[in-house]
Amino acid sequence: MEELTKRVSKTLSLTGDSVAEKRAEIRHYFHHTFNLYESLFDCINDEHAYYIRAEPLRHPLIFYFGHTAVFFINKLILGKYQHARVNERLESMFAIGVDEMSWDDLNSAHYDWPSVSETRHYRQQVRDIVDKLITDMPLTLPITPDSPAWLVLMGIEHERIHLETSSVIMRMLPLHYLDAHPRWSPCTETAAAPKNTLVALEGKTITLGKPKSADTYGWDNEYGCKTVTVAPFKVAKYLVSNGEFLQFVNAKGYQQPQWWTQEGQAWLAYSHAKMPRFWLLDNGEYFQRNLLNIMPLPLDWPVEVNYLEAKAFCNWQAALQKRHVRLPSEAEWCLLRQFIDSDQPNWEQAPGNINLEYYASSCPVNRFEQQGIFDIVGNVWQWTESPIDAYPGFKVHPLYDDFSTPTFDGQHNLFKGGSWISTGNEATRFARYAFRRHFFQHAGFRYIESDSAEVPVEAVNTYETDELVAQYLEFHYGSTYFEVPNYPKACVKALLSHTPELKQGRALDLGCSVGRASFELARHFDHVDGIDFSARFIQHGFQLKETAHTRFAIPTEGELVECKEVNLTELGLTELAEKIDFFQGDACNLKARFTNYDLIFCGNLIDRLYDPLLFLKDIHQRLTAKGYLVLTSPYTWLSEYTPKEKWLGGIKVNGENVTTLDGLTKVLSEHFHLVAKQDVPFVIRETKRKFQHTVAQMSVWQLK
Amino acid sequence: MEELTKRVSKTLSLTGDSVAEKRAEIRHYFHHTFNLYESLFDCINDEHAYYIRAEPLRHPLIFYFGHTAVFFINKLILGKYQHARVNERLESMFAIGVDEMSWDDLNSAHYDWPSVSETRHYRQQVRDIVDKLITDMPLTLPITPDSPAWLVLMGIEHERIHLETSSVIMRMLPLHYLDAHPRWSPCTETAAAPKNTLVALEGKTITLGKPKSADTYGWDNEYGCKTVTVAPFKVAKYLVSNGEFLQFVNAKGYQQPQWWTQEGQAWLAYSHAKMPRFWLLDNGEYFQRNLLNIMPLPLDWPVEVNYLEAKAFCNWQAALQKRHVRLPSEAEWCLLRQFIDSDQPNWEQAPGNINLEYYASSCPVNRFEQQGIFDIVGNVWQWTESPIDAYPGFKVHPLYDDFSTPTFDGQHNLFKGGSWISTGNEATRFARYAFRRHFFQHAGFRYIESDSAEVPVEAVNTYETDELVAQYLEFHYGSTYFEVPNYPKACVKALLSHTPELKQGRALDLGCSVGRASFELARHFDHVDGIDFSARFIQHGFQLKETAHTRFAIPTEGELVECKEVNLTELGLTELAEKIDFFQGDACNLKARFTNYDLIFCGNLIDRLYDPLLFLKDIHQRLTAKGYLVLTSPYTWLSEYTPKEKWLGGIKVNGENVTTLDGLTKVLSEHFHLVAKQDVPFVIRETKRKFQHTVAQMSVWQLK
Repeated sequence: MEELTKRVSKTLSLTGDSVAEKRAEIRHYFHHTFNLYESLFDCINDEHAYYIRAEPLRHPLIFYFGHTAVFFINKLILGKYQHARVNERLESMFAIGVDEMSWDDLNSAHYDWPSVSETRHYRQQVRDIVDKLITDMPLTLPITPDSPAWLVLMGIEHERIHLETSSVIMRMLPLHYLDAHPRWSPCTETAAAPKNTLVALEGKTITLGKPKSADTYGWDNEYGCKTVTVAPFKVAKYLVSNGEFLQFVNAKGYQQPQWWTQEGQAWLAYSHAKMPRFWLLDNGEYFQRNLLNIMPLPLDWPVEVNYLEAKAFCNWQAALQKRHVRLPSEAEWCLLRQFIDSDQPNWEQAPGNINLEYYASSCPVNRFEQQGIFDIVGNVWQWTESPIDAYPGFKVHPLYDDFSTPTFDGQHNLFKGGSWISTGNEATRFARYAFRRHFFQHAGFRYIESDSAEVPVEAVNTYETDELVAQYLEFHYGSTYFEVPNYPKACVKALLSHTPELKQGRALDLGCSVGRASFELARHFDHVDGIDFSARFIQHGFQLKETAHTRFAIPTEGELVECKEVNLTELGLTELAEKIDFFQGDACNLKARFTNYDLIFCGNLIDRLYDPLLFLKDIHQRLTAKGYLVLTSPYTWLSEYTPKEKWLGGIKVNGENVTTLDGLTKVLSEHFHLVAKQDVPFVIRETKRKFQHTVAQMSVWQLK
Repeated sequence: MEELTKRVSKTLSLTGDSVAEKRAEIRHYFHHTFNLYESLFDCINDEHAYYIRAEPLRHPLIFYFGHTAVFFINKLILGKYQHARVNERLESMFAIGVDEMSWDDLNSAHYDWPSVSETRHYRQQVRDIVDKLITDMPLTLPITPDSPAWLVLMGIEHERIHLETSSVIMRMLPLHYLDAHPRWSPCTETAAAPKNTLVALEGKTITLGKPKSADTYGWDNEYGCKTVTVAPFKVAKYLVSNGEFLQFVNAKGYQQPQWWTQEGQAWLAYSHAKMPRFWLLDNGEYFQRNLLNIMPLPLDWPVEVNYLEAKAFCNWQAALQKRHVRLPSEAEWCLLRQFIDSDQPNWEQAPGNINLEYYASSCPVNRFEQQGIFDIVGNVWQWTESPIDAYPGFKVHPLYDDFSTPTFDGQHNLFKGGSWISTGNEATRFARYAFRRHFFQHAGFRYIESDSAEVPVEAVNTYETDELVAQYLEFHYGSTYFEVPNYPKACVKALLSHTPELKQGRALDLGCSVGRASFELARHFDHVDGIDFSARFIQHGFQLKETAHTRFAIPTEGELVECKEVNLTELGLTELAEKIDFFQGDACNLKARFTNYDLIFCGNLIDRLYDPLLFLKDIHQRLTAKGYLVLTSPYTWLSEYTPKEKWLGGIKVNGENVTTLDGLTKVLSEHFHLVAKQDVPFVIRETKRKFQHTVAQMSVWQLK
């Protein structure tokens, strides 16, 4: 049994010479995972335990027992490999609610859960279907993300994740519901906690992200490529042990809000926690709850805490030592990971307490050493300072489009390294899992000490979901539709065609929105200022200038969305960022410093101002001699933006029709010549099937 | 002087052999008109009179004195023949407010009117500008509506209209402000009223409307072509004289609401009228106010009343005689007009008291006779039962787009025939003028007697100004944009390509909106029912079926609109109308009678239903064996139409994306096969520059 586990708890290679062998290997991996998962539930000795909400923020175990089977069917249906539902009621009930809820977002719905035997029967039905699919499915090597085999692997790796999460929930069940199980034997070794020390590491530039060419299954968030320069730091030799953490508990750390982040304080108020979740205090003596047993607190085992507790410990230590003590960032942890050459599935023997290769529990923190540092992988997951974010180049897997993207919200922190029960993909080098910061897994931490107070963690590049802002990101940086060229680009091209002598100098992009025209102008001008009234829009200009990336979600149909990314490098705009400054500002009340421009471009601005005349009457003062003012607009006057008495045109004046071009001519002709006008079409996507298709008029005015 | 007046009060021929002569003729016509207009104002002996609001529903005379000159400048600027304003203040003040206000819509704005001499000076400036333009303007013959000469004629004919309306206002001024004037001498003949009798006329089919090829200037509403069959009727030999109308006054007709329409009663309540507007009662004796004199009521002159009074008189007569006495319709009057062969400008001598050829007042009603009927033209205008409406083929003149269209509202009745002061275009056969029914001009009436109680007047085809409905009329029947084919037509073409065996039988167009797909389906099916939930939309389907025409106004820019007409004949759809029935109905609660269809087409319906599932689950019952259900939709689900829990797709179900096609398949597959699907694009115009461009999905379902 041990041998089998070792082999089949390793994820598959996607390549191979023999399709038949690969098919057998997949089948084996599938059944082993199904069996292993069920063997965990075999520890439960009373069906009542399936229905207890051991962790109030999560569903009871019956949900997880059914869920991993339902997942197979749902993905196969979505992929059109399965056409009929097996059991519509169970497939609805067991589908959603996996991610833990927040304590301030409790779901108190009552569920009419099915019986264990019904669920077990359902699991068998699914097992047969997947087995048959493995036999029948077309298979070519290597397996790629659009292969049916990829979907089977997705189901398997998904179940392996829940092997771990279910084991955590079982640690919260009253122990009398659980029996010992030969497959799930804990470590029994324990001793005094070793004294932790710091090891100095050199800084290094490293690359994060799993290559597309990698030989194993990966979740979408693992792919992409990000280069990070890591400054030198010192790292704790051991994971923080129960013994080391006990000092914090004894120092009344849980009662002193100064060590806790604001979020940590809120969680303390909710949870009334006074010590780690799996500790028990009985008559002044501490114990630890493992999966299937309770033992006196093993002082040399890693402490298991959430991020908030780990962070509080670090803050306490930092204050005590007057040093910059904190958790590692994702990159710092990855630098550490480079101390191990091997990776699952290729290692012979796991380089730590991981992959179920040693124990069904933690073990002492001083057992697995690499180059003077212990437990780089395994034992318990290690919280990092980094909220999870996608790497540049990230693409959602179309059949599981909400695996990662909902966690790119700044509220889910990454942990790394895996625990004793992390198997399959979870135990690979590139695995990236992230949970809410208050969440418990078999997770602890290792601290580091840095020279700098600054935590090298970037703000998460969250998905812009404001529909209008997302529309404009797509409009400026996204796909073209109906073969209408990119509008800001076309506008800049058109205006330059009318102003041949304008080659360098200073340009102002007024009403720049999310900023594309500023970048296009920067190809030709020495300096561009981009100004927009709305911080909601211009923040993306800022972000693109700073990070070259931004993300957004646009509707496809109904409530469904598509996640997209802007990448300045792909657009060939990266080098231009330094020529641009973005500012929030009001075109009708512009600061005096915005002056001395050779060109002022106002794209779709004039019919969105609250007082266009106020804007136009002095704009000539901001131009250099013979400078240009270029306006484009579809003249869509709306009283919600511009009071009707301020409309420049589209009105009757003294009973006669006055167009906006008439109105502009009247206002501007004192200082400007109209040198050209032309139509420039644009398309704004509202849904996958619905677009605004508009023809703006560009007018080019030169100072007299 | 008399000779000159006769000649130049006739409108110009648009054709000719000599451009130089035509230029001279235009110049002569212009100056004569300007002179004649000023000579009317020369009758005023006290400048104070220019500022009196003699008619509270209209501006004082100073406005009209300036207005006709301003009109020239405004139209020349609009036509780009004049670039600078002459006097911006006057041109703003004298521009609008021509149409009389309603008594329930009084404009009490205070105006800071200019002096008479300033206005006179301004008139001289305009005279010089127009004179120079006549010299310089390019001129080719014939003159067409896009010639600059047409604009000059427009200004001239406009001034001639105001020659008449200003003379009416002057009849309301206290007499002591006015001096006699040799050019404006009234008739002095008067006698007892002749006894009126009826003359029988045969019915006839006649054609209304001025041909495009006609040789004289016309206002836009005169053109077009309408064929009307007029039933036989009897017509009064004379206009109703003061003597004849006096019987109504003496019979207390003004005190008896039963003779008055509801609108008439409201006007009576406002005006407190007890007799015609230009009568005076002094010590039990009646007098009549003419332009420049007061005389004992001339009993044999035509009475001058508004439509409401004329109609009350007819109702009174009808009751007395127990016959169908009423005013003529426009067509009935036009039939009468055929008794005169000649027309201005070609007549040698006017066939009535018109064109200023005889008097500067009315004259006895028994003076000008044609084939036993008197005053077919001239003396006073003759009110008709017909609210003014455009003829089929009507096109707005782009430089005076609100001359006619605002009067197509059912509240402006036509009068015909002209008065003693109707000159130029006003005195031509095709002239059509319409005013609010309470309005006074030099206007009276002639009654007719009909065999039928029905008044042969069609409801006015008012311009649909509901923006959404107008959008859909343009969408179904209007222009194409971005080269995207007409959508209802493309849908029918596409669905027939997927259903080759469907050639005849019965079709249902569910959610037919303004009905185009119903017409397109009727090319192929024996019968089509068109059903829509909204009466606002389907009324246009009804109207097109009944009259083959409908009209709408769509926005161009801001508040400016473009007036358009749907003409089934031009679309080749007229013959199909009889195969179609339109009904108001609810797709989710359809009457049982709507069944037994070979095809049910639902264009852009499914995502606008309040309960699409309710609609879909039984729709198979309404089809014949192997019948087809065809759905097209862009799947733009919006909770304002469909509560989110009723969306068929565009939602997450059990955590997985479900498209609308998935949802449709699930609902329909019990009874239907999906036989085809394809994309069909469409474009809906919002403004001249802004469009919705959408790609609908068509799915074709055949009954199993």
